[in-house]
Amino acid sequence: MLYLDDIEVGATRSFGRYEVTREEVLEFARKYDPQPFHLSDEAAADTHFGRLAASGWHTCAMTMAMFVEEMKAHPQASLGAAGVDELRWLKPVYPGDVLRAESEVLEVRPSRSKPHMGSVRNRMTAYNQHDEPVLSFVALALMRRRPEQP
Amino acid sequence: MLYLDDIEVGATRSFGRYEVTREEVLEFARKYDPQPFHLSDEAAADTHFGRLAASGWHTCAMTMAMFVEEMKAHPQASLGAAGVDELRWLKPVYPGDVLRAESEVLEVRPSRSKPHMGSVRNRMTAYNQHDEPVLSFVALALMRRRPEQP
Repeated sequence: MLYLDDIEVGATRSFGRYEVTREEVLEFARKYDPQPFHLSDEAAADTHFGRLAASGWHTCAMTMAMFVEEMKAHPQASLGAAGVDELRWLKPVYPGDVLRAESEVLEVRPSRSKPHMGSVRNRMTAYNQHDEPVLSFVALALMRRRPEQP
Repeated sequence: MLYLDDIEVGATRSFGRYEVTREEVLEFARKYDPQPFHLSDEAAADTHFGRLAASGWHTCAMTMAMFVEEMKAHPQASLGAAGVDELRWLKPVYPGDVLRAESEVLEVRPSRSKPHMGSVRNRMTAYNQHDEPVLSFVALALMRRRPEQP
């Protein structure tokens, strides 16, 4: 189990593989983001998307799915996240794309008021199969500190 | 249809109603954020959530659903969004909660390089049924400018 004390600034990881299907793009969009360009090729044709593109929130969700899978392989004493900064949808994500992700630790900060925990600023970037970044954000993750030995 | 030129800094709107169900919390978490505290009351009991709580990305998606509904009632010449800043999950969202949202226009900026469009910085806040803010972010929305009259 990785604790806050084990996290090093500058550490990077590359992980995940997520096949984006038309069915899932439509299912997410119908439920959470039914703007025309997320619902049909026809409606997307005269926008900068050009054809059916995934909701940006769907891309966030798919990236999170890859990250949780990665955390299962390398368990962390996660306490969830306080938020996200500088979230940017850099390129459209299309059905047929295959996503992967990279993370980089930007900052590790033990809490002053809560000695058992601290925060990690983690830059997350998702790429498509052309190695183009499609999504970037800085997660403000909360983690437990390593318990003191008895 | 509202264009960029119709958007006024300081304008606010209150909108939406979203009932958070246990079934949907679990469905989203299983697919996109299967961390234990998003999957069962038992696993959430010894975290700050206390009981089963929705994925933060699910709260974003539900807030987007309310916003798209609002845009249908008041159509905007939306071109999607470039990103989001200062996203904060302020309180856990639980099954049984009923969410609503407010938006406030922070900035309107015509594009210099693309005269047909511009950007709007919009603060979005979601509240639960106790009027506690549960989510806040600043969306960087892109909009068309009003077409010139012939």
